Amino acid sequence: MQLLLIHSDYIEYEVKKSTPVAEQIEDSFKKGRLDEALTAFMAVESTDEANPKDVAEKAVAEIKKTASQVNTDNVMLYPYAHLSSDLSSPKMAVSVMKDIENSLIDSFNVKRAPFGWYKAFKISCKGHPLSELSRTINPESESCGEGVDTAEEVVSEALKAESTAKS
Amino acid sequence: MQLLLIHSDYIEYEVKKSTPVAEQIEDSFKKGRLDEALTAFMAVESTDEANPKDVAEKAVAEIKKTASQVNTDNVMLYPYAHLSSDLSSPKMAVSVMKDIENSLIDSFNVKRAPFGWYKAFKISCKGHPLSELSRTINPESESCGEGVDTAEEVVSEALKAESTAKS
Ligand SMILES: [Mg+2]
Repeated sequence: MQLLLIHSDYIEYEVKKSTPVAEQIEDSFKKGRLDEALTAFMAVESTDEANPKDVAEKAVAEIKKTASQVNTDNVMLYPYAHLSSDLSSPKMAVSVMKDIENSLIDSFNVKRAPFGWYKAFKISCKGHPLSELSRTINPESESCGEGVDTAEEVVSEALKAESTAKS
Repeated sequence: MQLLLIHSDYIEYEVKKSTPVAEQIEDSFKKGRLDEALTAFMAVESTDEANPKDVAEKAVAEIKKTASQVNTDNVMLYPYAHLSSDLSSPKMAVSVMKDIENSLIDSFNVKRAPFGWYKAFKISCKGHPLSELSRTINPESESCGEGVDTAEEVVSEALKAESTAKS
């Protein structure tokens, strides 16, 4: 899974047009907005199909950690296919996103933008150093009990330069 | 290079904090806004260092084609490290983005957001089917004259499902 977390003054969306893989949705789901929110843009990938429960759990952990760091209880889950060129099936993507939503719903004010619709959206990114983070999440192999890194921070230009300067 | 093109009602940014690799910029460059614009979020990748001129040319071609399709003359070039986990050097990234800017400047109202700064931004994506496109651009190998695909469209959930249904 590719995850892009944006600490947002606001995030809002409105569905414009269905695609052939659009989720069937209630009218109330056609628009949504959260203020002072962590927006989690996400792309479920084909490799995630090996262990989707594990990927969902790791995504939940990343979202909770970042929401705590930026001190918000509002989370918008937003499907974003453009974060990956190796997507899972649409059915798997919806299933993983619903799992994540269900895991967050007791502790957060969580909304989920519908999958498979062309959507207009507006977002305002706050711009502080923690306001944009990306994560690559890989599923634990079910046949392998060894601990491996669960989420790999994409090294930003800045951190990359810093580590080069130090080494 | 990873390229994410968003047809935007508006895009605006404001620098918040420099990173160790920040471009030195004039005050006038610290904020920027374009209305009715194509926003090109871009990450220059390590593989692009093999032939950065070629990558810049291909990116210009993609931007021109999409700007024409959505009928806008306003282009915001926006560095976005989070689109890739295999970035080029900061120096190369700035050089490629300046090349792209210089190639567009005669035909477009083009602005470029500065590299290496934490930035706040606001964007409004229009939401029609051409309003969000992603491209992976690979450099032509300089030692190999054979034609290869220059830009590979990331297949969206929708198109992927359609092709599966047809096959
Ligand atoms: Mg025109």
